[in-house]
Amino acid sequence: MPRHPKIIERKVVAQSRLFKVESLDLEFSNGAKRTYERLVSRGPGAVMVVAINDQDEVILVREYAGGFNDYCLSLPKGLLEPGEDLLAAANRELMEETGYGARQLEPLISLSLAPNYMGHLMQVILARDLYPQTLEGDEPEPLEVEFHSIHQIQSLLKLDDFHEGRSIAALYIARERLTQENDWQDHANLD
Amino acid sequence: MPRHPKIIERKVVAQSRLFKVESLDLEFSNGAKRTYERLVSRGPGAVMVVAINDQDEVILVREYAGGFNDYCLSLPKGLLEPGEDLLAAANRELMEETGYGARQLEPLISLSLAPNYMGHLMQVILARDLYPQTLEGDEPEPLEVEFHSIHQIQSLLKLDDFHEGRSIAALYIARERLTQENDWQDHANLD
Repeated sequence: MPRHPKIIERKVVAQSRLFKVESLDLEFSNGAKRTYERLVSRGPGAVMVVAINDQDEVILVREYAGGFNDYCLSLPKGLLEPGEDLLAAANRELMEETGYGARQLEPLISLSLAPNYMGHLMQVILARDLYPQTLEGDEPEPLEVEFHSIHQIQSLLKLDDFHEGRSIAALYIARERLTQENDWQDHANLD
Repeated sequence: MPRHPKIIERKVVAQSRLFKVESLDLEFSNGAKRTYERLVSRGPGAVMVVAINDQDEVILVREYAGGFNDYCLSLPKGLLEPGEDLLAAANRELMEETGYGARQLEPLISLSLAPNYMGHLMQVILARDLYPQTLEGDEPEPLEVEFHSIHQIQSLLKLDDFHEGRSIAALYIARERLTQENDWQDHANLD
């Protein structure tokens, strides 16, 4: 791997309520110079929840998405509150957005968005053993909640409003995990 | 699905060389009011390439990623040039970043980044029938090129520098596609 480029100068070039853009003047190890821009990630992080019921169905929410000015389907997700535990944040977002809580929560994977110009990471949590539990959130309107079989991801991909890379990656990873657990279970039953 | 929120006001609140942030004053159909911010997507779009050789290995590149100030592994990708055909752009990026061209190129899926605050879409292209072909790009230094079996995505996920949601989603979708083609092939051979 090449040596890291040297950061010659780093400064904030634009800022709004939610976004902060930094420019990096870089000198690469071969002498090449470039100016990069990146979005600076702020706050304690973000969490996304793959919540699976006993029928291997995953909970998806349909929410207004400002970037597309349209309603999009995705996994429940949200920002951690300062000092909040990761699994507690996952369960809170699940209750606020879907009306379910989970008795079993575990980290599944950590996903980045666009490493070339964003430092953001999303912690994906696998949630199981669900029970009905609502919690008042800060959503402007209630979200539509849908259950889809995690074994039919291809049908989901045919929907016009399901296209978010991180949600799709999380579903495939969770499905692979469930399939392996079932295989081990089958082996254990044979022994 | 609820009625779309009304956009009461829309204005640019921050801007840099590469990024443009817009604020949206929204009134939801239930009367709730919110101000959202979003990154405005510019330019003719972006393309990502799943290039597979005859051994079912996919080409990954390791590149300096400004967002993480570190080297990250991902699928080859880049921006379309104005007026450029999608498949031509995919082949150009593949040649520039990996030293291979592809005789067979086809759209696989379209992936969004973070619909809640970004309108960006990445067109993923499946590339096959590869041949050595380099092309000079605008990279500040040559990228490291690696071949990994597309049937071992779980091993890739264990690497510290492979975590981009869109690349992971694209690999699973491509693998499912290849597996189905092989199944059809097996059926055809039995008939």
